[in-house]
Amino acid sequence: MKISELCEVAGVPRATVKFYLREGVLHPGRASSRTRAEYDQGHVDRIRLVRALTEMAGLRLDDVRQVLAVIDDPQVTRLGVMATAQQAMRPLVAPRAVGEPAVTPGGSRAAAWLAARGWRVGPESPLVDDLERAWAACEEAGAPIPQERLNGYADAVEAIAELDLDSVAEDPRAAVHQVVVGTYLGDPVLACLRRLAQQHVAVTRLGAAQDC
Amino acid sequence: MKISELCEVAGVPRATVKFYLREGVLHPGRASSRTRAEYDQGHVDRIRLVRALTEMAGLRLDDVRQVLAVIDDPQVTRLGVMATAQQAMRPLVAPRAVGEPAVTPGGSRAAAWLAARGWRVGPESPLVDDLERAWAACEEAGAPIPQERLNGYADAVEAIAELDLDSVAEDPRAAVHQVVVGTYLGDPVLACLRRLAQQHVAVTRLGAAQDC
Repeated sequence: MKISELCEVAGVPRATVKFYLREGVLHPGRASSRTRAEYDQGHVDRIRLVRALTEMAGLRLDDVRQVLAVIDDPQVTRLGVMATAQQAMRPLVAPRAVGEPAVTPGGSRAAAWLAARGWRVGPESPLVDDLERAWAACEEAGAPIPQERLNGYADAVEAIAELDLDSVAEDPRAAVHQVVVGTYLGDPVLACLRRLAQQHVAVTRLGAAQDC
Repeated sequence: MKISELCEVAGVPRATVKFYLREGVLHPGRASSRTRAEYDQGHVDRIRLVRALTEMAGLRLDDVRQVLAVIDDPQVTRLGVMATAQQAMRPLVAPRAVGEPAVTPGGSRAAAWLAARGWRVGPESPLVDDLERAWAACEEAGAPIPQERLNGYADAVEAIAELDLDSVAEDPRAAVHQVVVGTYLGDPVLACLRRLAQQHVAVTRLGAAQDC
């Protein structure tokens, strides 16, 4: 299809297509003449993916480029899917400020909690430090999460992770796409569900209290 | 305490304190002379809260101001805590683009799913539209969430919401603080846990498969 058709099918203005091409997050079309290129369904899918990652997941183009590099990596194996996908999914928390000391992984509260929990995660995973900082931020802001509540959260999240993994395709590239995109874009879905569930639980409890 | 002491206790440079005062996210100290002001623990707590909301939860100062307005509202009642807190917690997804049609709440897939689920949420809640858009974004990006997986997520998230509500204080203002801050800053904790749990589940399943 021509660029005009691509724009119509993908639902984006021509300027967006040109911008994505220039930024390297969309592969060039097949040249059909000196000034024309042909595009296909792969271009439509890629435009939709980039839009979803930027507009819904709020990723910057640098992060999008990293996610695409993982998805497009022909070397990726089924065994490496999770680790590769995990790498592309950082950082979840704000980058450490210049001069801010890194947490000693072995000495952190998050690492100790993980070890007690028995989750099979490498202690050198940057996610351990992310968890440490996110957990500490709650405390700093006057809304600490005691260890038993974190355990309760972990029980619930383990069920979510089982569902995430159930949906992963056999083909490694499809699996990376699924894990990376599904995790990034699943976060806002889960955040919405959490607030809706809070509302439901609060209304239900208040109703029960008033019935007494 | 003087401003120099406040900076030391709160762990921020003087420029940050001045900036927060100017932006109205920190209340002025008590004037002790024409050029001096006295600060107290309330200022320390507020600085820590603002930093956590901006640096960890990634909120813009406009959003922080809105969160603080809810927390500081003396009219807030225990009954209204959840609704008030919920308002301050939007938007979770990117704002709708100019000209983008609003989803008809009654007609959306999210609203139908919620009704079937039986969650007691007002159909006019903006969260319903947020969920609709976040759910659609997954599909657009080639990682759709089928209804039965959403149901599984909802089961897990309901357990999280019960834990969230268990921790809420009796005092309305403390409750708003807890819900708003705990939800905002809890999201990155849950996101970290999700990725760690994915890693654990993946390693465990691969191990089980290789043992066969």
